[in-house]
Amino acid sequence: MAQDSTQEKHNLAGVKHTVLVLSGKGGVGKSTVATQIALALKQAGLKVGILDVDLCGPSIPRMLNVEGNDVHQCAQGWVPVYADKDQQLSVMSIGFLLGNKDDPVVWRGPKKNAMIKQFLTDVFWGDLDYLIIDTPPGTSDEHITVIENLQEYKADGAILVTTPQAVAVGDVRRELTFCRKTKIPVLGVVENMSGFVCPHCTECTNVFSKGGGEALANQFSVPFLGCIPLDPQLTQSLENGQNFLELYSNSASAAAVRKITEVLLKR
Amino acid sequence: MAQDSTQEKHNLAGVKHTVLVLSGKGGVGKSTVATQIALALKQAGLKVGILDVDLCGPSIPRMLNVEGNDVHQCAQGWVPVYADKDQQLSVMSIGFLLGNKDDPVVWRGPKKNAMIKQFLTDVFWGDLDYLIIDTPPGTSDEHITVIENLQEYKADGAILVTTPQAVAVGDVRRELTFCRKTKIPVLGVVENMSGFVCPHCTECTNVFSKGGGEALANQFSVPFLGCIPLDPQLTQSLENGQNFLELYSNSASAAAVRKITEVLLKR
Repeated sequence: MAQDSTQEKHNLAGVKHTVLVLSGKGGVGKSTVATQIALALKQAGLKVGILDVDLCGPSIPRMLNVEGNDVHQCAQGWVPVYADKDQQLSVMSIGFLLGNKDDPVVWRGPKKNAMIKQFLTDVFWGDLDYLIIDTPPGTSDEHITVIENLQEYKADGAILVTTPQAVAVGDVRRELTFCRKTKIPVLGVVENMSGFVCPHCTECTNVFSKGGGEALANQFSVPFLGCIPLDPQLTQSLENGQNFLELYSNSASAAAVRKITEVLLKR
Repeated sequence: MAQDSTQEKHNLAGVKHTVLVLSGKGGVGKSTVATQIALALKQAGLKVGILDVDLCGPSIPRMLNVEGNDVHQCAQGWVPVYADKDQQLSVMSIGFLLGNKDDPVVWRGPKKNAMIKQFLTDVFWGDLDYLIIDTPPGTSDEHITVIENLQEYKADGAILVTTPQAVAVGDVRRELTFCRKTKIPVLGVVENMSGFVCPHCTECTNVFSKGGGEALANQFSVPFLGCIPLDPQLTQSLENGQNFLELYSNSASAAAVRKITEVLLKR
């Protein structure tokens, strides 16, 4: 789809805030944190978009129960998929463009970059309070491309997600250095899967250790946004594409997500 | 380091079996499974090498307690780092080549490909019974490069690691399709983080759901190698660079790793 540069500007021009969700390591819950923050922002009455640039493992469509939806086109570009009836939460993901959900995206860098660039310019978001960009793990093509193409629109910054153990924290440390090098402001660090409360005896076990995220934030003098406990109900909700924050609003994990979102909003 | 093609052949020529550890999704425990299988093969009296091609998140050096080691050169190429006194377990990782462990590898595809190619040709492994190659998540540059460069040496195949929940299983499904397209034999699927036994009350909770790995293996008619339970002692051992299989040889997780390794050896 050809777009002239005037039109490119329009498609992100209506977005007030752009937040990247990053992590050096995979499987720490980037997509979980991205979806939950988006849902919490929506719950606060805001208009939110999620852009899933994890081309090899797009999990956002399933988590928001919009898997298998088609992307339509309008004069201004691709129309994102809405995850709610009120059209307050819109989603764009490579997952919508794959014919078969089992198909792997076996693309080398240049092709991925072209796709991400198109995602950043050709999606007709309309007016958004927040655009949350969920990235793949690492500090590679996808990240460089996103950052290069966002330069004009000045992203608010990045939320870094880690699990508590040192191996994950080490990867996020590299991501923090990456943010400094590329001059992306760090909005803060979230420690995910932080402690597991046994549903049988209510005792807490630090399955993946504890406190690594906060120590890292202190070391790098960036804000620590909070811990989200390991919660089977959260996992289950994401599996089923259910709104965890509504279903389990009294849980410790939901409270943690709301707290992180409040910090974002207070900026 | 310039190498002529005769020498390139030599460096992998002494390797009897090559096994890739793959997963579409990050954080499912690929490096954990890779190190534990390597340690179990070593325990069985074999000579093993681990090649860590996860350039953005090299975690193998820490897990094997060889972080910060230097790589030396000899006439035949780079000498891998030995993780044990008997020199039965050798390791090569980008982690050894980074000046500062906090430095991110902000490389685009071509540079990563060149590095991986060098890893596959220039490391002087000597005679090995098994070379385990730990890959980053996804089906991208690194994977294509590894597979292209291994063609001459015929990898035995790939072990696919997943966690039980459907989002992870979906990513591994794409990886299975990738293996078919690239004609890599699938040695089997491992389900990691499968059930958590509370150390306080010994009740088991399926933190990340259960059974997704086995269902996937059945669906694709590939072997199911087994479940490794979520085990804080395993996480802790990897944090500290300790040999989990020796320290906790009676645990369910250690038994699961040994079982998976036996299946490999029986092939």
